[in-house]
Amino acid sequence: MTVIAPPSPLSAPAPADRPGFRLTVTEPLALDSGQSLASYDIAYTTAGTLNAERTNAILICHALTGDQYFAQPHPITGKPGWWDVLVGPGKVLDTDRYFLVCANVLGGCMGSTGPADIDPATGKAWSLSFPVITIGDMVRAQKQLIDHLGIDSLFAVIGGSMGGMQVLQWALSYPDRVFAAVPIATAPRHSAQNIAFHEVGRQAIMADANWCGGDYIAQGLRPERGLAVARMAAHVTYLSEQALHRKFGRNLQNRDAISFGFDADFQVENYLRHQGNSFVDRFDANSYLYITRACDYFDIAAEHGGVLANAFKNTKTRFCSISFTSDWLYPTSENRDIVHALNASAANVSFVEVATDKGHDAFLLDEPEFHATLRGFIEGCAQHRGLNKS
Amino acid sequence: MTVIAPPSPLSAPAPADRPGFRLTVTEPLALDSGQSLASYDIAYTTAGTLNAERTNAILICHALTGDQYFAQPHPITGKPGWWDVLVGPGKVLDTDRYFLVCANVLGGCMGSTGPADIDPATGKAWSLSFPVITIGDMVRAQKQLIDHLGIDSLFAVIGGSMGGMQVLQWALSYPDRVFAAVPIATAPRHSAQNIAFHEVGRQAIMADANWCGGDYIAQGLRPERGLAVARMAAHVTYLSEQALHRKFGRNLQNRDAISFGFDADFQVENYLRHQGNSFVDRFDANSYLYITRACDYFDIAAEHGGVLANAFKNTKTRFCSISFTSDWLYPTSENRDIVHALNASAANVSFVEVATDKGHDAFLLDEPEFHATLRGFIEGCAQHRGLNKS
Repeated sequence: MTVIAPPSPLSAPAPADRPGFRLTVTEPLALDSGQSLASYDIAYTTAGTLNAERTNAILICHALTGDQYFAQPHPITGKPGWWDVLVGPGKVLDTDRYFLVCANVLGGCMGSTGPADIDPATGKAWSLSFPVITIGDMVRAQKQLIDHLGIDSLFAVIGGSMGGMQVLQWALSYPDRVFAAVPIATAPRHSAQNIAFHEVGRQAIMADANWCGGDYIAQGLRPERGLAVARMAAHVTYLSEQALHRKFGRNLQNRDAISFGFDADFQVENYLRHQGNSFVDRFDANSYLYITRACDYFDIAAEHGGVLANAFKNTKTRFCSISFTSDWLYPTSENRDIVHALNASAANVSFVEVATDKGHDAFLLDEPEFHATLRGFIEGCAQHRGLNKS
Repeated sequence: MTVIAPPSPLSAPAPADRPGFRLTVTEPLALDSGQSLASYDIAYTTAGTLNAERTNAILICHALTGDQYFAQPHPITGKPGWWDVLVGPGKVLDTDRYFLVCANVLGGCMGSTGPADIDPATGKAWSLSFPVITIGDMVRAQKQLIDHLGIDSLFAVIGGSMGGMQVLQWALSYPDRVFAAVPIATAPRHSAQNIAFHEVGRQAIMADANWCGGDYIAQGLRPERGLAVARMAAHVTYLSEQALHRKFGRNLQNRDAISFGFDADFQVENYLRHQGNSFVDRFDANSYLYITRACDYFDIAAEHGGVLANAFKNTKTRFCSISFTSDWLYPTSENRDIVHALNASAANVSFVEVATDKGHDAFLLDEPEFHATLRGFIEGCAQHRGLNKS
């Protein structure tokens, strides 16, 4: 897969353990909290080639615990890129035609500046002194990267879950720079239930004695057990009851009968424990707090007089909203709220509810109807944009 | 409210901090695991008066974190009985007509023998050496209490959630001793999703350093933070998304704006933290492990050749199954599985799905359609049983 060379000396290859690129921005970033970051890094990867007109760039926005490794093996887990199923020559996100960019979010832990990094002002890890960031702040930082890459107008911004929130925020913050937007399995605000699940995860982390009030890096500790519990709790919400039933049911794990004990008798228990334990190898606990908080604070209407429809007035962006029938974390009704608001603004919007039993995680999986929908929308937009097939 | 005197010297008033009665059974209890308990206590409370024929007894079965204080103030929290809304003179569970009994489940922590109690063989707390118990074991112990009270045939057995599992188990284990059965908001087996949520709770407890591999009592510690997280995770599942939205939405807790921090900015966070913190005052962490495990192991069909309908063959019990539209923990479909199995056995069964947005917890709340359903069924059964109004 072709990657473009970083176009300026500020963007350098990232460290060997974080393949891809790293842009260091030295211009301060004003945050929604009123605080600012004097300088910060944005770690990113690319796929495909930017055309001469710089009109074929697609920004991919990752979800809560995703990262910039959407199209290449993950440097820690070795697993294929999280959207590998969609990205490549001739695939839906066609690397022969588009230039794809994906950046680790601000507050993350895979190379973009976050709470696990060193605060230059103190020489110590930020930990909880890192400013609380918002989805708006994440997008503001991404915009610096897009400027740096010399891209005036993104052909598309695409993402699921928290990635979908970033898509919406892009269309709101920089309407003239987003030709097409695809918010998938997301919501215009975090619901009470969403906040509740996030709070459970945060409390699980904070309950770990190794968290040390957030100061675990200075103490040389890691709140791995709490972080694993947070991941397990969240993971249940990513799957539908049907998917869990189909994958695991009440099947036993490597045994013929229940053990009358607290080992992982059931496959679903073993699966969850594995999800929790493997997660801690690639994620920072404080990052989890910050990024979940950014989601909780997301509420488009609140920034537009409480009226969601006001947010998208006069937008010229073409939208395609996609939801999944069995997604109970960001159900169709919440995705439809976005569509209603766009319709109320007479925006150009299509909406597809994909029938699947795979739950929220469907946006990461081989889901033919979803892929066909995305392919069709991108193809249509490419024609409007004049990105004809070569 | 009248309470009957304990009919035998084996049943004594419980200790002052656990008002009610305590039956000490000295006959060994054979458990499903193959182990046995040499002796054990059953803590219980009663309301109403047993009639001379001993035909008006209703056994109330409590849910996961419930206890025997269904009709009187809780000795620790001071809150009204958990079914106070249903119990009393002239109410649905009419103490002028029926004799109500509710026992703390085996494995519990409010007076019935459980892992926090002293193992007579060692003089130390059982902790994880307490045998893993099942819903069948809980019911087997309750049957000793019912024998002890001289009740040949229970007029009804009623319970919601894990209480509903006990109801089903009673009808299966002692079909001739249950005239009517009301399983509410429950399931004939614990689903993969149910097991997953329980496993998250158990892992939260086990992740607490104070859990000490289960040996916290001997160490003089309490894994309160882990137990609180378990409670928070579970509590989200007891409420519907609609109920959370209606009660809390994105309302802020005692502030005008978000704090850009990790305090409980949102009311729903404050509520969850309160649920977690208050739970640890009244519940034992190991008990939580044992009781959740008993639910996970519940699978009626597995004990009947994999065919649920086989379980209820030739039953003479009258059943009324009740579910709630917004209950996603034990959804209507799972309750309907019970009804289908009963129908396949040509059993006497009625089924009501109550329309409510209150989620699983609806069975504990003032839900008029639910109460009317229960009242009607009990009244009809009373006529069949010859329990005419005095």
